[in-house]
This record gives sequence, C-alpha cells and structure tokens, in this order.
Amino acid sequence: MNYADPINELIAQFSKLPGVGRRTAYRYAYSILTMSDGDAENFAQCILEVKRKVGRCPQCGNFTDGSVCSVCATRSKETIMVVAEPSDVAAIERTGKYDGVYHILGGCISPRERIGPDDLRIKELVVRLNGAKEVILATNPSTEGEVTAQYVAGLIKPFGVRVTRIATGVPIGGNIEYADEVTLLKAISDRKDY
Amino acid sequence: MNYADPINELIAQFSKLPGVGRRTAYRYAYSILTMSDGDAENFAQCILEVKRKVGRCPQCGNFTDGSVCSVCATRSKETIMVVAEPSDVAAIERTGKYDGVYHILGGCISPRERIGPDDLRIKELVVRLNGAKEVILATNPSTEGEVTAQYVAGLIKPFGVRVTRIATGVPIGGNIEYADEVTLLKAISDRKDY
Repeated sequence: MNYADPINELIAQFSKLPGVGRRTAYRYAYSILTMSDGDAENFAQCILEVKRKVGRCPQCGNFTDGSVCSVCATRSKETIMVVAEPSDVAAIERTGKYDGVYHILGGCISPRERIGPDDLRIKELVVRLNGAKEVILATNPSTEGEVTAQYVAGLIKPFGVRVTRIATGVPIGGNIEYADEVTLLKAISDRKDY
Repeated sequence: MNYADPINELIAQFSKLPGVGRRTAYRYAYSILTMSDGDAENFAQCILEVKRKVGRCPQCGNFTDGSVCSVCATRSKETIMVVAEPSDVAAIERTGKYDGVYHILGGCISPRERIGPDDLRIKELVVRLNGAKEVILATNPSTEGEVTAQYVAGLIKPFGVRVTRIATGVPIGGNIEYADEVTLLKAISDRKDY
C-alpha cells in the first residue's frame, strides 16, 4: 500500500519511538489524521516545548525545566542513589519512601554498545561525594548494571563513603517455581538470618 | 513522581494514541527528550504537515494528498469494496490481488458508540453505484461489522448491483483445535463442495 507521502513520513517518525513497528506507527499516524487540527497542533507544540524548556539538572543529571531539579533543591544530600536513567528515578519515587537525592549516570558500561566509563556521568558523581554519607548503587541487576556498579564502587570507596548495592532476589509476590535459576541462586546465597 | 510540566504534557499527548498507557507514553516522551533538537523538530513538523496536506478522496473517502486518490484515479470502478476504515484498505492492498476500487464508510453502525447509518458514508456509496457491477462488503466479521454489512446490502440490492460478503471461517494456517465456537460453526455451515 502506498500511502500519501506525508503519511509515510509520519509513520517513519513514529517508527523511531522505542518498540514501535510499522503497523503500530500506522495506527498512531491514523490517530493523528483523525484528530482535530487543534489537537494535532497541540501535540506538535508539546514536542517542541519539551525540547525548548527541559534540560538536565547540573547536579543529578535528571530532566528539569528549571536549573536545579526539585529533588536536588529540597532534599538532604547525605544519601545519593546512583541510577542509569531518569526513568529509574521515577520508579524509585513511586515507592514514596526514599528521601535522598539521585545521580543519573546516563546509561551503563556496555562494550557491545561501545559505552565506556567516560561516557557516563561518573566524574560528576565524584564531585558530589563531599558531604555524602552513603552511595546506593541502583543500576539494574543485569550484566551491564553489575559491571557498572562494581566499577563505580571501586572508584568511590577510597573516598571513605559507605557504598551499598540494592538487594536482588525473588520479587515480592513472585513465584519460586517460575523464578529463573540465577535469581534463585542469588536469593539463596544472599539469604538472611531470622 | 512529578516530572517537569512540559514532560507531563507530552506524556498526556502520547497517552491519547491508541493503546498507549502512561508508562509507554513516558518511554516515548523520554525518547523525544533524548533525540536531537533537529529530529524532534522534524517529528513535530511531520505531524503538522500530515494535517495540512492530507485530506479525504471525494470518491472513496480514503486519505490522499491530492484531490482524487491514486486508486480511484487509475482503476476500474466495476467492483467497489466497502470497508470501515482506511487501514482496511491497506490490509487488502497488501494481498496485491484486488484491482477494484474501495469505499470507506468511516466506521460501522454501533449503538454503543452512538454511530448510526447517517454517520457513515453510505449516501456517497449509493451515488457511486451507477456503472458498478459488484459491491463486496468487507466490514469485520464482528457484530457491528455484520449489522453494517446487512444494512448496506439491504439498501443497495434494489439498485440491481451484485452484492457479496467476504467469507468467514478458520483462517489459513489457523488451528481447528484452538478456533472459537462461533468461527467453527460458521466454517461448517459455510462449507463448500469439492
């Protein structure tokens, strides 16, 4: 099927979004085609606005529309949680219990994707250690996340700050029967005394 | 988590797309945040362009960036396939075998969604019957699709044109064991002689 050129171009744009194939991109384009002109203009405007107004917090590296983000501006900097991406901050904040600040690395060390330590915001973390009592390493429990956590831990431990790693194991509500072997082995080796 | 306002607004925009929940909308917004300014501007521009340049074909009702669409402009109008949406045209065209024209109703009769016959492009179909030899009703084999097909059939049969309905049954490559009862009953009652 040959769609009109502007439709094909919009499909190509939507296909750039993560996890969006051609068919889904068509459905999105179709949704734009059938919305009112005003709604479509709003949509386009929001894309432009977000690029114009949102930058990075100079301290933690999270997205913010001011200079320093609201978390860094208001919370104690005694505890710094190190995460790979801003979306990880969103997940931790949903727990409603963590009251320290964050440090966004901007990814994980990954030879496959040619991301080395120098591509991450690690130097910026070292600068922030002054006054910090604990650094919690909250990268994913994947190969890349573990490598990154170990690298960061090795680098900042000499500064005398407490360095911790989030726990791994069978998730709450999860099922031992269906848990993978690596998770189970880790859950057993990391067992706690009652 | 309170994102910056422009991020929340972009998330709200992406949430309007079909099948997109808040989490997916965040991933899309994040993808916009991390692409280059130029790429984001292109994206916004494509949304505006598609609304500016793409209209409806005055004959079949499909999307087109000219006045009459390329299908209506070039093909024989002896056979008209009636479908609910432009996306159905795309599916039929992928078969590469159909060489007639289409007529897009713009939906199906649905009391639940308060869509009646007058909300569909049925009058526009009647106007096109002059010169047509066959009208193939290709609405979905759902309740709403069947009701719509029956309504359209009853309306245009008096004009002396052949009116047909696409076949329903177990799909090719499908599995009788897993087919639903309604499909199986239909496949049995619509059985063909060898």
